[in-house]
Order: sequence, then structure tokens, then C-alpha cells
Amino acid sequence: LFYLAVPEISDAADGTQDTLLVRVVAEDGLDGWGESDSSPLVSLAAYVCPPSHGNIVGLRQSLVGVEVASVDDLRGVVGRARRRARDIAQVNHALAAADIALWDLLGKRLQKPVWQLLGHPESLPKVAYASVLFGVTPEDTESVARRIAGAGFRAAKFGWGPFGQGEVDDDVAQVHAARKGLGQGPRLMVDAGWAFGEDVERAEATARAIAPFGITWLEEPFAPEAIGAYAALALRATGVPLAAGESADDVRRAEDFLLNAGVDYLQVDAGRIGGITGAHAGWQLCRDLRRSYVNHTYKSHLSLAAALHVFAGDSHSGLAEFPFEGSALSMGLTSNRLPVDADGRVRAPSTVGLGVAVHPEVLAAYARSVRIEIDGSVLFRSAAPG
Amino acid sequence: LFYLAVPEISDAADGTQDTLLVRVVAEDGLDGWGESDSSPLVSLAAYVCPPSHGNIVGLRQSLVGVEVASVDDLRGVVGRARRRARDIAQVNHALAAADIALWDLLGKRLQKPVWQLLGHPESLPKVAYASVLFGVTPEDTESVARRIAGAGFRAAKFGWGPFGQGEVDDDVAQVHAARKGLGQGPRLMVDAGWAFGEDVERAEATARAIAPFGITWLEEPFAPEAIGAYAALALRATGVPLAAGESADDVRRAEDFLLNAGVDYLQVDAGRIGGITGAHAGWQLCRDLRRSYVNHTYKSHLSLAAALHVFAGDSHSGLAEFPFEGSALSMGLTSNRLPVDADGRVRAPSTVGLGVAVHPEVLAAYARSVRIEIDGSVLFRSAAPG
Repeated sequence: LFYLAVPEISDAADGTQDTLLVRVVAEDGLDGWGESDSSPLVSLAAYVCPPSHGNIVGLRQSLVGVEVASVDDLRGVVGRARRRARDIAQVNHALAAADIALWDLLGKRLQKPVWQLLGHPESLPKVAYASVLFGVTPEDTESVARRIAGAGFRAAKFGWGPFGQGEVDDDVAQVHAARKGLGQGPRLMVDAGWAFGEDVERAEATARAIAPFGITWLEEPFAPEAIGAYAALALRATGVPLAAGESADDVRRAEDFLLNAGVDYLQVDAGRIGGITGAHAGWQLCRDLRRSYVNHTYKSHLSLAAALHVFAGDSHSGLAEFPFEGSALSMGLTSNRLPVDADGRVRAPSTVGLGVAVHPEVLAAYARSVRIEIDGSVLFRSAAPG
Repeated sequence: LFYLAVPEISDAADGTQDTLLVRVVAEDGLDGWGESDSSPLVSLAAYVCPPSHGNIVGLRQSLVGVEVASVDDLRGVVGRARRRARDIAQVNHALAAADIALWDLLGKRLQKPVWQLLGHPESLPKVAYASVLFGVTPEDTESVARRIAGAGFRAAKFGWGPFGQGEVDDDVAQVHAARKGLGQGPRLMVDAGWAFGEDVERAEATARAIAPFGITWLEEPFAPEAIGAYAALALRATGVPLAAGESADDVRRAEDFLLNAGVDYLQVDAGRIGGITGAHAGWQLCRDLRRSYVNHTYKSHLSLAAALHVFAGDSHSGLAEFPFEGSALSMGLTSNRLPVDADGRVRAPSTVGLGVAVHPEVLAAYARSVRIEIDGSVLFRSAAPG
């Protein structure tokens, strides 16, 4: 378990400032890596906590020493660990990192890319959308949009910041600036970051006002609990499709968005829904219900690779979130980064495992040393990184 | 923050073996207490974790130093703390204890019982059902049932253990024994503890076979994620009503059970759904949808009191879970216990706050000393109890 963080954490909605990594190591030294997207300390506690009873057993106790020689083994091990920790709400956010690490390790062991272990016949290219925050002013936003278009992206998503915090006209000015900076060709998505609470009227007004700018989706206008508000907005038929789901921490949450919220795009974060196993179950729901699946990824390329393997072979779901900016920790975490091709597309690697490696120097540079004692006994102590 | 535990933790589904308490103290020394039902260490980490970004801020940072002079203040403070920790899945399990403690404190400040702060006109008696585990054998179960009836209870729930693990006949033998021990008068509920996975046929077979014993509800035949399985079983009309919801960690989960799973009784644990504030929102849903609300409580009488205040004035929802057995820690945690009257009923106290007090000697006897350091700096260190 590795808790990494930049020295100074800001209050912005920038999830790249810290992270929790899990490394799993087989008896012969082969290893795998995974990343969770939540509070590193809370997720770490879900691994090392003392047992409370038969339904609260720390993940470490359920995972250390198990045999994982096949996909069936992996699913069994992860399922059992989850059941034994069922009364810890953090379980799937935490387990995500170990699950991803186990898929990485198993791919290396079986000499196959993870997408192949998942049953995909091939790894198709996805249009990478650069995911960024709105600027403080429309001018800032336009400038970022120009950089994204200049970097060869064919799609971009702007979110958070001032969006939805002022008047409808302010939202329009921001979206107009984003479109102006991108030009007419690229896809443009907007992430409202819960800005409208449960106010369907206000969300509808903004949706109708930004529709003329050609919006692929409006994301999270409401808090994820407000399924009724999503359903009401979907019925208003504003001309702007809806997207949500990043907070889903189990497959039912994802299913709830699909069946009851009326979203057009289900966004799944493998780092929160229990890893590749959970995200793949979410993808299967989308496939069965003929809806669009898209990864939610605002972490390193370790998380990006994990996310892409999940729906690599799906020709219907052709967009992928691509973290465009972020901390030096997050941008540098992997020795290799997934390239965006000349057509602005990215794909899951076809080398073994996840196809990315953790950079030992970056790991060492950002590792925080954690020590947890109970009654004077050491429950957890960070290993030296690398 | 107080982490309490018995010396030896067993693997049974007995949630009374440890606990996390939160004490909130006002400037003038007036205090309030609350209890969470999850892993103490994971919930504690949600209070003290370093911030990750604007949506992961530890609960302690959001709560210390705030003003809570009214119900509106309390709802505002708790809502803000929750929003700033939105990307921690553990947030509501953890926040539960502080929320309950704040209601306790506010009641003491305003010299009113919590049920009155919540707008209930009176505190009605509820039929207390003794909540226990099935015995290893039907004979063990019958013996426990006799003890419960002898103690004056008019209702009992048996759960977990061997139920659902063998054949339908084994389930029938256990339920038969429980009914035999209780006699014909008392209500009998059965908690399957997820035993049937998603196997609707198997659950239906057991439900039909135990129906003749007069079952008030069959609880959690499936995992809480399996909303479709619940809905399918409800449609089979076995004659046994369904109950679920204890795992709900936000109001949408509760709403999902009501709207989509077809449960007859919504079971809400205030110690998991964010405290009295969250449980009360769940109760309001039941009231609006004309469904039965029932507390889920398998902790101390501190949790029981919090749970009872939530629906104290509801004449439609007349049953209350009552922890009948448990560790010395849990049974002794409060100086006063809520009495079961001659008619087997219990009610929310009408003294100020929650109406129960934490026993300082029990607190001291079971407190575990926790110390968390990051990079050599102490992030959290347990205070001396009491």
C-alpha cells in the first residue's frame, strides 16, 4: 500500500494531488499495480483495519496468501474479500486498487493483455476527450480549449469551476468560449459538478441555452442521489444528452442510473466501483441495455489503462476520458504513457497485463510514510517505496 | 473519537464486539454522544484523513469550531461536511456518529428530546423485537426463543447462522423451533443474511415453507445490490412480506429499496445512513409512500435511542429492533438502558437530547488507543477516555 501526495494540497476539484497505489507480488516476484480514486488514508484503513465481526474483515487479511492462477480465481478472491468487508462502505473504493493490480499480475502471468482476459476480441481505438476544469474567466477557458485542439484532441470536456454558480448567461459565456477555442470540429462535453442541486428548472434553462453549441453531454447537473431530478430533466428533452455515474461504488448504483435516471452515457470509475471487475460488470449492463459506456478517469495513466481495458472491444462506446492536465505526481507516475494517435484516439495497450509500469523514482519522490498503531502495536507501517 | 473493542473479536455476525463513538463538546462544556455501525478504524480515518482536494476533506476539519444553535444550523453543518467529503464512500457511515452526537447536544442545549426537535408531536411506544442469531441447532434456537418470551418480549427476530445454508427443510426446522419457543402470540421475523445470493427460486421455496409459522417478514434474502431479485421475489407473492435496507448508506439507497425492490418494511440504520438526519429523511420517504419504517440497530442503547427518536411519532410504524444480546461493552455502554414495558414495548425517551448517557467506566475499560502518523507527524492520537 503506497500513499502518494504532492507537498501542497489545494482545495480545487483536482483529483490528481494524491493517490493510493496497491502492489501485489507473487511468490516468484512477478507483480501488478493498481490505483484507487478516493481518500488514500480511508482506503488504506479498509485494508488494514482490525476485524469487527464476520462482515468486517480488512481487505489485506482476505487477500494475502491467496492463489490467483485464472480469471475465475481472481473473481472468486475479489468477491470473497468484498463479502467479508460488506459493512465497510469504503470497500469498493478501496478494493479497486488491489483488483486492478490482480488483473495486471494475472495478465503478466498468462502473457496476455487484460482486455483479452476480459473476453474482448480486440482493442479498438476510442476518441480521447481531454478532461479539464473551466477557467476562472471565459478567456481562460478559451485559451485552454485552444491548447487542447492544438494538441490534436478531437474532443474535450470542461467542468466545475464557475459553471452553474452564477446566472445562465455566465454558463453560456463559458461554454461559448470553450467552443470558440476548440473550433467547430471537436466534440464538447460539459461537467456541471452537481451545480444545480436538485433544481430541474435551473438545469433545464442552462441545458437549453448551451444546446446550440453542440454539446455531446451534460454531466452531473445534480447530486448522484437525486435520481428523480435526473429522470425529470431527461423527460424535458432539452436536446442535450445526460451523463452520470462516476460516483457509483457498486454495480447497483450504475444500474440505478441506467434504469431510473434516464442517463444516456454511464460514466464508471474503475478506481471507485471495485476495480476492473466492478467496472466490467457495469459495462456488461450498458451492453445488455444498449447504452453508451464511458470511463471516468481523473488520475494517472495507471488508472487510464485499467479503465480502457474494461470496454476495449466495444464499438458502440467510442469515447474515452483522458486526463489532460494534473500534478507532476499523476502525470509522471507511469514510465510509459498511453499515446493519443494522429486522429486523437487512444486504446488499451496490447502488451501483457495493463501495459503500463509505475515509475520507481516518482513513487519514491511522492511517497508518504504512514504509521498506524493500536494499543502500541504497529498495525501498518509504509514500506520503503520501490 | 473513541475506538472501543472487546479483547477477542470472533468471526460471528455479531456487531457488538467493537464500536466508534464520537463526543462533541460545546465551548461551555455541554456535550453530546453518537455511535457509528461500521469498521471503527475506517470511519475514524474519514474524520482525520488529510484533504485530497475540494471534494475530499476530512469530517473533523468540517466540524470543529462550527456553530450549532438550531436545527437549521445542524442540518447545514452536516450537509456541508458531507458535501466536502463526497468522494469518500465511507462518509455517511462515519458521519453518523457525529450527527447523532450533534442532535444529542442540541437537545440538551434547547432542553428538548430529539424527537421533539424532529417535529414529532409525541413519542409513541413501539413493540420491541428482540434481535438474535439462530442457534447452531433448532434446539438452541428454541431455547433462546423461550428466554425471549420469558423476558416479556412480544416479538423476536432470528437471523444468520445456519439459515439458508442447507436445505429448505433445515430452514423450516429452525423457524419451527423459534415459533415453538416463542409460542403462538409473539411476532416472528426471519433474517436470511443474504443467504440466497440472487437465487429467487431458492428464496421462494423457503419463504413458502416458513409462511405457515406466521412470519412478519423475511429479511435480506439477497445481497442489497440485487434489487432485481427482490422485485422478482416480491412478485411471487409468497405470503411472507419482505424487509431490507440496513446497509443503505444514503437516502437514495433507501428510496431504491422502496421504489424498485418491492420491500414492505424499510430497515434503516441511523449509524450507517449518516445519523439521525439521514435516517429521518428515510423515514419521511416511508411516510410519503405509506410504507413501514423500522430501525436497524445491533449496537448499544446509545444507537437504540438515536434510532427510536427518528420515527417516535409514527403510529403506522409500530415495531422497533431491540438488541437483546451482545458484548459486555455494548450492553454496558450506557449508564441507563431503555426499558421494555409490561406490554413488550419501548419508546424514545422524553428527557433532553437522546436521553441516554455513556458510562465512563465502560468507556475507559474498552477504549483502544489509536495513533496515526504521516511522515512522522501525529495526525490522530486517542484522547484519554472519559
